[in-house]
Amino acid sequence: MAATPTGDVDVDSEAVSASIVGASGFAGGELLRLLAGHPEFELSQATSREYAGKSVGSVHPPLRGTDLRFSQPGDLESVDVLFTATPHGVTMEHIDEYQDAAELVVDLSADFRLDTEAQYDEWYDGHSCPGKLDVAQYALPEVNRENLAGADVIASGGCNATATILGLYPLAEAGILDGADVVVDVKVGSSEGGAGGGAASSHAERSGVVRPYAPTGHRHEAEIEQWLGTSVSFTCHAVDMVRGASATCHVFPDGPVSNGDLWGAYRGEYDDEPFVRMQAGGSGTYRYPEPKAVAGTNHAEVGFELDASNERIVVFSAIDNVVKGSAGQAVHAANVALGFEETAGLEFAGLHPVGSP
Amino acid sequence: MAATPTGDVDVDSEAVSASIVGASGFAGGELLRLLAGHPEFELSQATSREYAGKSVGSVHPPLRGTDLRFSQPGDLESVDVLFTATPHGVTMEHIDEYQDAAELVVDLSADFRLDTEAQYDEWYDGHSCPGKLDVAQYALPEVNRENLAGADVIASGGCNATATILGLYPLAEAGILDGADVVVDVKVGSSEGGAGGGAASSHAERSGVVRPYAPTGHRHEAEIEQWLGTSVSFTCHAVDMVRGASATCHVFPDGPVSNGDLWGAYRGEYDDEPFVRMQAGGSGTYRYPEPKAVAGTNHAEVGFELDASNERIVVFSAIDNVVKGSAGQAVHAANVALGFEETAGLEFAGLHPVGSP
Amino acid sequence: MAATPTGDVDVDSEAVSASIVGASGFAGGELLRLLAGHPEFELSQATSREYAGKSVGSVHPPLRGTDLRFSQPGDLESVDVLFTATPHGVTMEHIDEYQDAAELVVDLSADFRLDTEAQYDEWYDGHSCPGKLDVAQYALPEVNRENLAGADVIASGGCNATATILGLYPLAEAGILDGADVVVDVKVGSSEGGAGGGAASSHAERSGVVRPYAPTGHRHEAEIEQWLGTSVSFTCHAVDMVRGASATCHVFPDGPVSNGDLWGAYRGEYDDEPFVRMQAGGSGTYRYPEPKAVAGTNHAEVGFELDASNERIVVFSAIDNVVKGSAGQAVHAANVALGFEETAGLEFAGLHPVGSP
Amino acid sequence: MAATPTGDVDVDSEAVSASIVGASGFAGGELLRLLAGHPEFELSQATSREYAGKSVGSVHPPLRGTDLRFSQPGDLESVDVLFTATPHGVTMEHIDEYQDAAELVVDLSADFRLDTEAQYDEWYDGHSCPGKLDVAQYALPEVNRENLAGADVIASGGCNATATILGLYPLAEAGILDGADVVVDVKVGSSEGGAGGGAASSHAERSGVVRPYAPTGHRHEAEIEQWLGTSVSFTCHAVDMVRGASATCHVFPDGPVSNGDLWGAYRGEYDDEPFVRMQAGGSGTYRYPEPKAVAGTNHAEVGFELDASNERIVVFSAIDNVVKGSAGQAVHAANVALGFEETAGLEFAGLHPVGSP
Repeated sequence: MAATPTGDVDVDSEAVSASIVGASGFAGGELLRLLAGHPEFELSQATSREYAGKSVGSVHPPLRGTDLRFSQPGDLESVDVLFTATPHGVTMEHIDEYQDAAELVVDLSADFRLDTEAQYDEWYDGHSCPGKLDVAQYALPEVNRENLAGADVIASGGCNATATILGLYPLAEAGILDGADVVVDVKVGSSEGGAGGGAASSHAERSGVVRPYAPTGHRHEAEIEQWLGTSVSFTCHAVDMVRGASATCHVFPDGPVSNGDLWGAYRGEYDDEPFVRMQAGGSGTYRYPEPKAVAGTNHAEVGFELDASNERIVVFSAIDNVVKGSAGQAVHAANVALGFEETAGLEFAGLHPVGSP
Repeated sequence: MAATPTGDVDVDSEAVSASIVGASGFAGGELLRLLAGHPEFELSQATSREYAGKSVGSVHPPLRGTDLRFSQPGDLESVDVLFTATPHGVTMEHIDEYQDAAELVVDLSADFRLDTEAQYDEWYDGHSCPGKLDVAQYALPEVNRENLAGADVIASGGCNATATILGLYPLAEAGILDGADVVVDVKVGSSEGGAGGGAASSHAERSGVVRPYAPTGHRHEAEIEQWLGTSVSFTCHAVDMVRGASATCHVFPDGPVSNGDLWGAYRGEYDDEPFVRMQAGGSGTYRYPEPKAVAGTNHAEVGFELDASNERIVVFSAIDNVVKGSAGQAVHAANVALGFEETAGLEFAGLHPVGSP
Repeated sequence: MAATPTGDVDVDSEAVSASIVGASGFAGGELLRLLAGHPEFELSQATSREYAGKSVGSVHPPLRGTDLRFSQPGDLESVDVLFTATPHGVTMEHIDEYQDAAELVVDLSADFRLDTEAQYDEWYDGHSCPGKLDVAQYALPEVNRENLAGADVIASGGCNATATILGLYPLAEAGILDGADVVVDVKVGSSEGGAGGGAASSHAERSGVVRPYAPTGHRHEAEIEQWLGTSVSFTCHAVDMVRGASATCHVFPDGPVSNGDLWGAYRGEYDDEPFVRMQAGGSGTYRYPEPKAVAGTNHAEVGFELDASNERIVVFSAIDNVVKGSAGQAVHAANVALGFEETAGLEFAGLHPVGSP
Repeated sequence: MAATPTGDVDVDSEAVSASIVGASGFAGGELLRLLAGHPEFELSQATSREYAGKSVGSVHPPLRGTDLRFSQPGDLESVDVLFTATPHGVTMEHIDEYQDAAELVVDLSADFRLDTEAQYDEWYDGHSCPGKLDVAQYALPEVNRENLAGADVIASGGCNATATILGLYPLAEAGILDGADVVVDVKVGSSEGGAGGGAASSHAERSGVVRPYAPTGHRHEAEIEQWLGTSVSFTCHAVDMVRGASATCHVFPDGPVSNGDLWGAYRGEYDDEPFVRMQAGGSGTYRYPEPKAVAGTNHAEVGFELDASNERIVVFSAIDNVVKGSAGQAVHAANVALGFEETAGLEFAGLHPVGSP
C-alpha cells in the first residue's frame, strides 16, 4: 500500500516545505491545521488576498497559537510542495506560476480532475490550460494511489465524488456495477458552500433545511463516471450540518448478489485501507455510516444492506467533506506521492458526542 | 372537492364535540392545538395516563391559555368524534370501546391503514382485530376523499407514506408509474420518534445527524404500495430538524416522458387542492419543496425535475410530519367526513424565517 | 385595556388599507403574514427595491398562495396605514413622504424610538429629522397603550428592549427597581441580523455559537432606560436559534423583597394582558420562559426566581423577536391606535414541538 | 510550570497503565480517546456495567479502530492510575476499592471537590466518606497545580466551575474581586446532561432552546466560592450546542479599574499557561471567547471588556465542557501529578468551521 518515493521532492532533507494558496477559506484553513501538525512538512506561506498581513489564527481559531500571517498571493516563494485551495478556475490560470514555484502542486479545485478537454467542456465552461489535463493525476488514494508517486500535479478528488466512489468502488471492481442501475442521493453540510456566504446560506435561511440542489446534472457525476466506469443518477440535498457528506447509493445489480458476495467485495478492497471503515448493522446508536462519526477526521465509513425483495443494494458512505473530501485527501495524496507514512498528520480519530460538527 | 355530509354525526348542532385519546404526545398535542382553533369542533376530553390531572398547557406550551386538563383514558365520555393518537397497537385493542364512545373514530396510528390481515401480517406482528380492517377508511384526502363521508373509522395516513404518495400519485394516475422503477429516499425530523426519547434520540446524539434507519423494509412501503399500485425501493434517514418529512423520489419511467406530460399530470391532480402547492424551479432561496417552507402547516409542496440524460424524473415532496403527516391530516379527514370546509382549522400558512421548526 | 378609537383613520369603512415599505426583509415578511390574516386590514402594497415585480411568495414561502407582488418604493400609493420595516435611518429620511401617503405611520426601525435628539445623539449617529422625535409615540402596548390612540407616527419598540422592559416593568412600577442594580444578559437568534447575511452570519460560522456581541454599549439600553427610569448593565449573546430573544435580568434590590411582593407586582401588571404569560417553576420540561414556547406568536413569557442568599431576583423574559419584538408589536400597536381588538390578527398560539423555530 | 514527579507511580517504566471506571458515558469516552492517543499511558481496562463485553468503539465511534472491550466494574484489575467517570455518589462509595486498585485515583465527579463535610452538606446530600475530603486534591491546574504532585486522590474540577474560575481567577489574584459584586450567567451544551437522555433532553424538546435551569443555587457555586474566595450570583441556561460551557461574568469592582490593570492581571496569570488563550476584541468573526473556537480541545479562551459607564467588567470564558471541563482536565491533572509534559495527549487544536460541535 505504501508508495515508493520516486518523486522529485527530496524527502531526505530535514523537512519538506509547503505553502498554501487560498488559505483563508475552509479547505485552506484545514490544510493549515493538518500541515501544522504534520511530522514531515514545514509550513512556509499561506496566501490570502483579503487577509494578507493578518495572523492565520484571526480567521481560523484552531491556529491561534501559530505565528504565521497571511501573505499576498503575488508574493509566492519557492517551496517543495504547493497546495492550492482556490475557487475553481484559478489554478488553471496560474498553473505555470505554481509549477515554477514548487516541484509538486496539489490542487483542491476541480480544475484538473478530468482526463480530457471534452469531458471538461461537457460539465464546465471551457478550460484555459487543457494541455495539462492529462499531466495531472487525480487523487483518491484508495482507488489510484499507484498513480501518485512522482506526480507533478495532483488533482485531489471532490467531496461528493469521494463519498460516492468510496461507496461504490468495491462493487465496480467486483463487476457488480456492470449493467447495474445506480441512484445516488447525497446529503451535504454548509461548509461545502465555502466561507463567505450569501442570503441562501445565512443561518436564518439554512438552519433546519432539507434543500434539494443540483437535482440533476451535478458536476461531480463526471468524476464518478470516470472512476467507476458507469454513469449514476445523482441528486444532492443540503441538510443541517456544517461538515459532512453522506452518499446513499441504491444499486440494482443485473443479476443476483448475496451478502457474502458483498462482504467479500468490500473486505477485499478495504480491509487494509487505513482510512476506510466498514460499518454495517450491529446494535447501539451508530449502526451505519454517519458523517458525525467521522467528523474532523480523514476516515470514510462505508456500509450496505441488501434489500432482497427489491434486488437492491443500499450502500451508505460518509465522510467529512472538509477533510477526507478535500484537505485531508490532498495531504493523504501528498503523503503517498512523497513516500511518507500514509497516515502522517491525519491521525485524529474524531469526537463523541459531537454536534455537526 | 367538498364532500357531502352523509355521516352519522349531526353537524347541524352548535358544535361537534371531540376528544383525544393519547393527548400528551406530539400528534396528540397538535390535535389539541388544531381543534382548539377549529370553528366547528368543541374540545371535550384529552386523555393521558401519565399526566392525568395536569393542565394540557403544562405539557404543550401553545395550550397554556387553555383550561383543559388531561383525563385518565379509562374515564372516556361519549362524544361525537374521537381522535386516537396512541402508539401502534393500542387502537386495535380498544376499538370497540372507542366506537361505543363516538360515532366517528379517527385513528392516527398504523392499526387500520392496511386493507387486509395478510398485508398487516406481512409488515407488522399480528392484528388483534382484523375484522375491522376493511371497515376502516384510509385517509389521504387528496387521494381518496370520496371514501370518507359516512365512515365510522378513519385511519389517517402515515407521515412518510403521505409525503411519498403525494409526490408520486399524479404519476400513478397518469400511468407514468406503470412499469417504472422507483427509489424513494426520505429525510425525517426528530418529532417522528415521538415524545419520550432514549439515548439515540437525545440531543447530544441526534444533533447534526444524517442517520440511516430502516434502510430496507420500512413499514410505510405497505401503504405506499396499496395506494400507488406499485412497489418502491424505500430508505429513510434521520436529519437535524424537529418537524418535517421530505421524500425524494427517483422515477425511471418505462418510456419517454416530457416536461409537458409531467406538468399536465401534476396540475391536473393538484391545481384545485387546497393543501398541495407545486414548487419547481424559479429563482431565489426556495426553489424546490422544503419541509421548512411548510413547517407548522397542513400544506404539502411537490415539485420535480426531469433528468433527460438518465431518463429519470426526480420528484420532491415535503410536508410537516406532525401536521400534514399526522394530526392535520386527521382533522382534514374529519372535515371531509363531516362535511365541513376542508380547510377549517387548518389555515395556518407557516413562518419565515424559521429554524426547523 | 382596549383603547378608544380616536385616530384619524376611519375604521367604520369596510377595511383599513395598509402597505408595507421594506417588505422583503424578515420583519416585512412577518408584517405581510400578519396583515394577510388580519380581519380588519386589507393589504395594498409591499415595496422592495430588490424584488420589485416578483411575487411576495417567492421570497416568503408562507405567502405563496398570495397574488401580491413587490412594488418599487418610489411607487407608493395613498393608504390608511403605512408600516415601514426598513433599515435604521431610512424612515427619518422619508418621514414626510410617508406621512403624506398615510394617516398613520408605524415604523419598526429605531429612528423614532427615543424622545429627544440628545438621547439619539448619545446612542446613534445624528438624526436627520429630530423635530419629529417628540411627535412619534413609542409602542410597547403593555407599558404605554394609552399614548397610542390618535398617534400619527408610532415607533414600535425594539426586540431586546421589549424583552427586557417586559421582564422588569412590574418591578419598576412596584418601586423595586429604585436603587437596584440590574444586569441584563440577553440571548438572541439569527433573525435579528436580518435577511442578507455575511460571512459571520453564514450557517457554517453561526451554527452552535454562544457569541458575545455588544458586550457593552448596546443601543437598546437607551430605550430600556427611557421606560424603566433606570440604567441597566446590558450584554448580548448570539445563540443557535433563528427566532427568539431571551432576557435574563439579575436584579439586586435596595431592600428585602418577598416572593409575595414579586407575585403581587407581576400579577397586578400582567393578569389582564392578552400577550403576557407568567411562567415560573412548576414541573415538566417547560418551567421558565423560553423563546421556543412563544416562537411564531405575539406572546411574551415572564417569570422569576428569588435567590434569597444573594438577595437577587432572577427575572426571565422570552419573546419571538420577529413577532412580539417587531412585526407583531407593530400590528398590536396599530390595533390599539385604531380601536381594533388588541389581539386581532395575532391569535397564533405557537407550535410544539418546534426546533428553533 | 512543570511539576516535579514526586508521586508514587513509577514513571520510569515503559508506560503507565490506566483504567477508566464508567467508560460508556461522555466523559468516560473522552478519557478513552485522550488516553488512547497519550504518549505515556497504556489503556488497561474500561468498565461499563451496561456494555460489558462490547467493543468500546460500538459506543464511541472515534474508538472504532481500538480492540478494547468494556469490562464489568467488578472485574477491576490493579493499575497505576484509575480514572473514575461515574455519576456523583459512586466514587465516594467505592473509594477504598479504587485506592486498593491504583496508586492514583482521578475522579471526575463532584464527590471529592469540596474541602469539608460542612461544605458538602450545604450543597449536596450527605457524604459517605467525609474523611477523604481533605485527602483529595481539587484539580484546576491553572489555579493549583502545585498541589497535585504526589496526590493519592485528585478531584477534577467541574465544567461550569472551571469556566467561571478561569474567567475570574486573575481578578481574584489581583484583588479586584475584593468587595466586588459578581453575576455569572452560564450557557451550556447538551453533553452536560450526560449520555442517556430523557424527555426534556430529547432532540425534539432540546433543539433551539434557551432554557433556564438552576436559576439559583447551582452546586458549582460551592467550588467557585472555594477557589475565588467570594460568592457569586450564578445562573445557568441550556442552549443549542452539544459541547461547550460559556461563562459571562459581570463584575462590579469596589473601586476604579483600568484596562491596563485588567490586561496586567490576565497576562500575568495566563501568558505562560499552555491551555489558556486571551481573546478580546480584534476584527473578524471570532472576537471574544466562544465554545466553538475551543470545541474538542483542552483550551480555554478568556476575554473581557470594560464598561466604563457602568463601572462593570464583562468577562467571557469559554471551554469544551467534556474536555477542559472534564476528561481533559483530569488528564492534565494526571500529567502534572506524574511529572509528564503538561500538554501530553492534549494537543488537539480544534476545527474550523465546526457546528457545535
